Amino acid sequence: MIIIGEKINGFIPKTLAAIKARDAEYIRLIANGQTDGGAAYLDICAGVAPEIERETMEWLIGIAQDTVDTPLCLDSSDPQMLVDLMPLAKRPGLINSVSKEEGKTETVFPVIAGTDWGVVCLTCDNNGIPDDPPTKLEIARRIVAEADAAGIKRTKLFFDPLVTTLATKGDSLQNFIQGIALIKAEFPEVHFTSGLSNISFGMPYRKAINMQFLSLSMAAGMDSAIMDPMSADMQATMKATDALLGNDDYCMEYLTAYREGLFPVKPE
Amino acid sequence: MIIIGEKINGFIPKTLAAIKARDAEYIRLIANGQTDGGAAYLDICAGVAPEIERETMEWLIGIAQDTVDTPLCLDSSDPQMLVDLMPLAKRPGLINSVSKEEGKTETVFPVIAGTDWGVVCLTCDNNGIPDDPPTKLEIARRIVAEADAAGIKRTKLFFDPLVTTLATKGDSLQNFIQGIALIKAEFPEVHFTSGLSNISFGMPYRKAINMQFLSLSMAAGMDSAIMDPMSADMQATMKATDALLGNDDYCMEYLTAYREGLFPVKPE
Repeated sequence: MIIIGEKINGFIPKTLAAIKARDAEYIRLIANGQTDGGAAYLDICAGVAPEIERETMEWLIGIAQDTVDTPLCLDSSDPQMLVDLMPLAKRPGLINSVSKEEGKTETVFPVIAGTDWGVVCLTCDNNGIPDDPPTKLEIARRIVAEADAAGIKRTKLFFDPLVTTLATKGDSLQNFIQGIALIKAEFPEVHFTSGLSNISFGMPYRKAINMQFLSLSMAAGMDSAIMDPMSADMQATMKATDALLGNDDYCMEYLTAYREGLFPVKPE
Repeated sequence: MIIIGEKINGFIPKTLAAIKARDAEYIRLIANGQTDGGAAYLDICAGVAPEIERETMEWLIGIAQDTVDTPLCLDSSDPQMLVDLMPLAKRPGLINSVSKEEGKTETVFPVIAGTDWGVVCLTCDNNGIPDDPPTKLEIARRIVAEADAAGIKRTKLFFDPLVTTLATKGDSLQNFIQGIALIKAEFPEVHFTSGLSNISFGMPYRKAINMQFLSLSMAAGMDSAIMDPMSADMQATMKATDALLGNDDYCMEYLTAYREGLFPVKPE
């Protein structure tokens, strides 16, 4: 699993409070903690008003890179800002995100072409998020065609088929999994990622839904997640699922994570 | 999910202690608790020496039926004892278990034919547990043929494809799931069940493995489990998975279980 650590994100209240207070220690804490939890990338999202987004991103990028060597996942709805921030990154990371909304791939793809940067690709366009997996595949086709034309390797594309909310759409998981299956069948080289908590919006005890969404999506081919690697329950779910799916020879990663104290500390 | 409550089993140390002390209160406690947790059947297994197994089973059956109306799942390696005990049951339940080991189906099937009793069918024979799913299917075929011949409905058969231990066989889940897939393709009417903890034997933090084994097996078509419905983590895993798989319209069962306090009580 390619973990994109989600915690440095101003849309999370605790992180927003740290951003507003310019509390660098808290940002360091979650940069270190997520790295220790196996994050391959640290998402950096300001979650503030547009007029202060750029300076906030610069501040977060500076602290994160001062703290850990983990590559960054630059996260904003403004694609021009994302490419403007790329030179600040000490090493190639991810752009989060493009879609077939106008101006996204057009802005990002020429800049990351020929680099080692990857990109999160949402299967939506100017019409919004499609309800049906075949339309998601259609959008993915257009994105892959543009990436191919720009010379971006397909292994650098992290498709997010945009899961819906289970409380309002009972087929949210099936729809998501079918999106993965259709895209994977045509483009086996690409990665699949998703946030884990949108699906449980409006439900009680969301953790249970999020954990099983992770597990069942991994079984369907999701090989990345935008998640909290400091969550012991999520770690245990992820490592157990990888072991069960045969992705973890001799359960070595599972056993290592247990020894390193990444799992919940409570009696069985 | 058809839950077979596993706790009234002398192979569990705490239950064995209660059996030895003839502590009826503890048996009542776990009979009530498992019923409140949604058990469709209560497994009754003495787990004591053969010479006192029958009287122990009779004692357990008496207390369980005195306490709750939940049908029983009579569990012993001695098929003759199981059929001998059937008349004590106030309502039809399950026989746990038969296999293609000599004498099992021959003893049980004629007795349950024409009744509403069901039966757990292990896919093993005198040669032991097969390594490969096709041989498990072959055994299932022989069991179904005998059931058909005896006039036992296929919906009364609960196949257990006998999961192995992940620590020693990395493909334990895949093998189990393939067993389900092969048998289900040929006999779509039968149920599938399993204990949840064998797979995690020898591993640390077994709960994580057991939870994801439940979830991933449900996704593969397992519609029953021999489990502890008093475990809040298992309840949350099962209900979340059912909701995600589309088996729980409007998440009603999930929400009800939450309201009834069946989920873990801790902050999210």
